[in-house]
Amino acid sequence: MIPDPTFITAVEARLARCFDDVRQPATTASLPALFEATPQEDMLLEAVRDLTFRGGKRLRAQLVHIGAALFDPVAASHGATVDVAAAVELLQTYFLIHDDIMDGDETRRGGPSVHVALGARCQSDAMGMQQAILAGDLACALQESLMAGLDIADAQRRTRVTALFAHMHRTVIRGQSLDLLGTAPPETIVRLKTASYTTEGPLLLGALLADAPASALVPVRDIASALGIAFQYRDDLLSLFGAPEKTGKPTGSDLRAGKKTHLVAMAWERADTATRAFIDAHLGAAHLSDNDIATFFDIFRHTGAIAAVESAIAHHTDRALQVLSRMSVSPVGKSALRALAIQMAQRDA
Amino acid sequence: MIPDPTFITAVEARLARCFDDVRQPATTASLPALFEATPQEDMLLEAVRDLTFRGGKRLRAQLVHIGAALFDPVAASHGATVDVAAAVELLQTYFLIHDDIMDGDETRRGGPSVHVALGARCQSDAMGMQQAILAGDLACALQESLMAGLDIADAQRRTRVTALFAHMHRTVIRGQSLDLLGTAPPETIVRLKTASYTTEGPLLLGALLADAPASALVPVRDIASALGIAFQYRDDLLSLFGAPEKTGKPTGSDLRAGKKTHLVAMAWERADTATRAFIDAHLGAAHLSDNDIATFFDIFRHTGAIAAVESAIAHHTDRALQVLSRMSVSPVGKSALRALAIQMAQRDA
Repeated sequence: MIPDPTFITAVEARLARCFDDVRQPATTASLPALFEATPQEDMLLEAVRDLTFRGGKRLRAQLVHIGAALFDPVAASHGATVDVAAAVELLQTYFLIHDDIMDGDETRRGGPSVHVALGARCQSDAMGMQQAILAGDLACALQESLMAGLDIADAQRRTRVTALFAHMHRTVIRGQSLDLLGTAPPETIVRLKTASYTTEGPLLLGALLADAPASALVPVRDIASALGIAFQYRDDLLSLFGAPEKTGKPTGSDLRAGKKTHLVAMAWERADTATRAFIDAHLGAAHLSDNDIATFFDIFRHTGAIAAVESAIAHHTDRALQVLSRMSVSPVGKSALRALAIQMAQRDA
Repeated sequence: MIPDPTFITAVEARLARCFDDVRQPATTASLPALFEATPQEDMLLEAVRDLTFRGGKRLRAQLVHIGAALFDPVAASHGATVDVAAAVELLQTYFLIHDDIMDGDETRRGGPSVHVALGARCQSDAMGMQQAILAGDLACALQESLMAGLDIADAQRRTRVTALFAHMHRTVIRGQSLDLLGTAPPETIVRLKTASYTTEGPLLLGALLADAPASALVPVRDIASALGIAFQYRDDLLSLFGAPEKTGKPTGSDLRAGKKTHLVAMAWERADTATRAFIDAHLGAAHLSDNDIATFFDIFRHTGAIAAVESAIAHHTDRALQVLSRMSVSPVGKSALRALAIQMAQRDA
């Protein structure tokens, strides 16, 4: 069965082992003790581990698995596929830690973000921020360790996998930079900052791990890209209308942060002058009241913005499913991807 | 000839090519255009490139080269050796960018640190800090790209090299974390934060690239460790007594930052009560006057702290040379390492 619950269990175990391995640097990686063993400072490692295991849907891991299953259901459960899936999850931890610093977000996955947790532990906001930069760096170094140990006999295949991973890494950085600068269109941001490492990278990494033919990579990318956009649009709606205990984010946090989501763009496009003035004046305002947030909800409803975003989610999901239906790939992988696509579009957390 | 000037030229060219390659992501890494080509945002890339090529001694690159030359003078000039040397230099860029944010350092290699430069460009200190976190991340992603493309036919050798690289990466993070927290003895910090990626990692990476026997790794590490400590002690002296136009740092910046260097420890240990009180009151004080700095200089002189640090540099360098003299390695590599060790101990920048 794909997605195989035992695959996700294997990814969780691989992540746990990765944290255990680095506690004892002297015996790591079948190398002798290259740096003198010193008492392991666990604060950063605990912070990274805590966020990695605190919820998270393992969506990216599943997509690596399914990307491989499309072309080779056996390769989908290989150790290298588990390793890459775990590395993508650690890459996600790293981005979340650094993004929360940059965006000043205090909550993540239903708990304190890492800079807030470390700030409390060190009794200093400034120290919390400094240590959180390092915690993000450590999550990145941990994925590097995982990718270094990748067991892929074919050198060319291995290089394609690791080079794509690095390319994905760079792409997300570019997306986050442009998002902060506010100089690029929202679709570019969604593509670079979210789709890149949520759907495109993971599905393509899976495909490369299963030695997919070069001709299949563009359709796989197109499917993943459409799913990534639908994913982000659903995320935008959930951050406003989802249950905070499920999404792990307080209601309205995107509005307080002034995020110019597709939902906001749709509302603005359809709004009259007075309503546009309200949006411009209140989006990203420091202290939005509950009343202001309720007004935003009304605007999203009566302008038809919510319906427009729901329709865009359906459109992108359909587009992905259409491309998928035309591909000659393993039936088991195909039906797994179809099921996951629908689940991603309709999720409530 | 080792160190071969053509090797450093090759590293510079490799670094330049690395920056050029990622400008055109669509054609990178012999993969098809996996993410849609978008107008390349060059601000971060320029910031990383600028710092990478602004001075820097390429000491780490030379040590990779010499580490290989000890065991195989031919492997010392292989493409993979050049790639790893360039990756270590990019790792250094990444650490410098993040460290300067954490330490609040405004000057680096004789110019503005990256967060200062980006803050000026974006006309916002906060944006400069955020973009600089990303610039550091990008330098890290660039080294990941280089390491991904590593051309090493032997899979086991390749894994040892990439695993050691990741181990080195994690070690520096741990060192910087402990340094900020101020909870570890100075020797531990020097070892983890500086020697790890300045001398130990580079020399060992070179050795692994040249397929050094396992029995040689501990002596190589011991040589590198001693050289790394001597390097840091020389750095401590230079940051106080060196010419700012050569060191790229304003005189006394370590004192203003309150760094508890070996020099400071030696002075404190030898000082009388009144002098200790001066050190405790002024080290790390927000606005040290030129007079205060001059007083520190006097203290370092009359307590004999400078002589003690010079003697420690000589001691560690001698220790390294003694271990080296007992090794059966290539004469050309041995004499190159001996020359570099002396140069590192006696440098004026």
